[in-house]
Amino acid sequence: MISPIEWADDRVRLLDQTRLPAAVIWLECTRPEEIAHAIRTMQIRGAPALGIAAGFALALAAVASPDRSAAELLRTLEAAAGDIRATRPTARNLFWALERMLARAQQAGGDPASIRRDVVAEARAIQQEDIQTCRDIGRHGAALVPDPATILTHCNAGALATGGYGTALGVIRAAAEAGKRVQVLVDETRPLLQGARLTAWELAQERILATLITDSMAGYCLQQGKVDIVVVGADRIARNGDAANKIGTYPLAVLAREHGVPFYVAAPLSTADLSLASGAEMPIEERGPEEVRTVLGTPISPPEMPVLNPAFDVTPARLITAIICEAGVLRPPYETAWPER
Amino acid sequence: MISPIEWADDRVRLLDQTRLPAAVIWLECTRPEEIAHAIRTMQIRGAPALGIAAGFALALAAVASPDRSAAELLRTLEAAAGDIRATRPTARNLFWALERMLARAQQAGGDPASIRRDVVAEARAIQQEDIQTCRDIGRHGAALVPDPATILTHCNAGALATGGYGTALGVIRAAAEAGKRVQVLVDETRPLLQGARLTAWELAQERILATLITDSMAGYCLQQGKVDIVVVGADRIARNGDAANKIGTYPLAVLAREHGVPFYVAAPLSTADLSLASGAEMPIEERGPEEVRTVLGTPISPPEMPVLNPAFDVTPARLITAIICEAGVLRPPYETAWPER
Repeated sequence: MISPIEWADDRVRLLDQTRLPAAVIWLECTRPEEIAHAIRTMQIRGAPALGIAAGFALALAAVASPDRSAAELLRTLEAAAGDIRATRPTARNLFWALERMLARAQQAGGDPASIRRDVVAEARAIQQEDIQTCRDIGRHGAALVPDPATILTHCNAGALATGGYGTALGVIRAAAEAGKRVQVLVDETRPLLQGARLTAWELAQERILATLITDSMAGYCLQQGKVDIVVVGADRIARNGDAANKIGTYPLAVLAREHGVPFYVAAPLSTADLSLASGAEMPIEERGPEEVRTVLGTPISPPEMPVLNPAFDVTPARLITAIICEAGVLRPPYETAWPER
Repeated sequence: MISPIEWADDRVRLLDQTRLPAAVIWLECTRPEEIAHAIRTMQIRGAPALGIAAGFALALAAVASPDRSAAELLRTLEAAAGDIRATRPTARNLFWALERMLARAQQAGGDPASIRRDVVAEARAIQQEDIQTCRDIGRHGAALVPDPATILTHCNAGALATGGYGTALGVIRAAAEAGKRVQVLVDETRPLLQGARLTAWELAQERILATLITDSMAGYCLQQGKVDIVVVGADRIARNGDAANKIGTYPLAVLAREHGVPFYVAAPLSTADLSLASGAEMPIEERGPEEVRTVLGTPISPPEMPVLNPAFDVTPARLITAIICEAGVLRPPYETAWPER
């Protein structure tokens, strides 16, 4: 299974997800600005993977800094964190990882060399923990998957979106590993086609049976009784269970309820933002118009066509059957379902 | 306003809708097989326009035939009708026009020359009536449009889909002509992008304010309160009001009801198939996988990716606020709402 981001020899290698599946190209980053650029352009994406990338960005900042005092190095790390914070606003994991990295740096104390060592260790720990977290999510979620099952998913909440196993696709992988006969309906996920490009590619590599549909076909598939469960990831979850995820998730939740099909959100606890009472407080990123006016560079509309391009929508908690996290399967009311941390 | 198909000098000129908006290319057809090919490849599309094209195909068959007797000519016309019937299964208007053309040919009697003259006249009448029908639909529908209004539409039910004014876009045009402040949210309509390519192009030419969204963004727009009404066309309507229309229409109807937004279907009575009790009996065309695996020729998924590609879905009557036709605004229960014909 692929890991989309790796730390090796004080460098970060990351798989350019804007080029898949046509080309498998690894980028090598030595400066935090390069990670910021990769996040902004979605060469790396997916909430848990953004947390890992944010951690590695601070690790690069620490390793590259010539700072001679602990205080100087902490200021360098805080500046780098500010740059990463400004890349994309919605995924909670990015902010969570930055907070965790800065806390570790502050606790490290001592000389710059030991701070550097601790910061790199913390970034690597975030990735290692993420892989275990995804496996736990997969195990808990697999128990909810019927056998046989056709599972509808949206966007890519797979190995490519995480440290290397996936959240929603982790559930699907774990069900398949447990011997359940699963097949997947993959929403293409316009505008950036993470379903058609990334989820389709991952599932083909794993030899899990998958069928590609346009986002507009999910309703038909549900209406025809072709879908047993819907499983998606999340970018930020409020205390009440409202969940932001890739644009197009909310309509699936409405349609799933219309047809009595369970709708599951699979995400690590680092995606939960318990400081927010509800989804109404979530920042929703609006991206540039060319993503809608074009498909992989090909214009599809009149060139000056006005466009809306919200990158996420918020699914209200009342439409979410359960939230699958590393601690287990959380059921509504979600306010009181969160484990102690 | 553009008419996508024209009869002139015993030829049919039609606008190649697979090439818009990048190129405005007119095709000239002299044989019914060329019309059949244009229908199959969707160079011409939209239920009312398919009715007009079917009429013109029989007119070409009549004009081109060397048949010396009325009986021979009728057999030629029936064979041509069989070929057109086999092109695409869902749009009722295509079958309706063929029935009307064959009935006129049979009633014409007399010598082949007079049958030819009558058949050409009938095909031209179908187009002329369609334009008037669309204007009537527009007038009835415009009364339902608030002022100001943001109107969500799907696919292209415009001039390009009809004789030249549009059904759903006819309603929008008529509201704008009546001085109402309308703006349109245009679903791009994957896989073939009739919204991004055709509706966007038509509305730009008419200077009606329009904003392009991906199909997956309609739920977000409704959730944000950005949509006042939804208006779509139809390809076939059953006696109970169930309406087949471009894939992706059904989810809009579910979402519109979720948000208390009226959902209107605008279509001529020639789209109604009163022989069908409900949508369950409607033939739904399944098109080839390349339409989903590619966008305007650019591959977007692994090359052998399995695909579903239903071209239509059926919106149940209970989700349709009203059906706007040339006779007026029909309200449920639709079984008893159809005008005498």
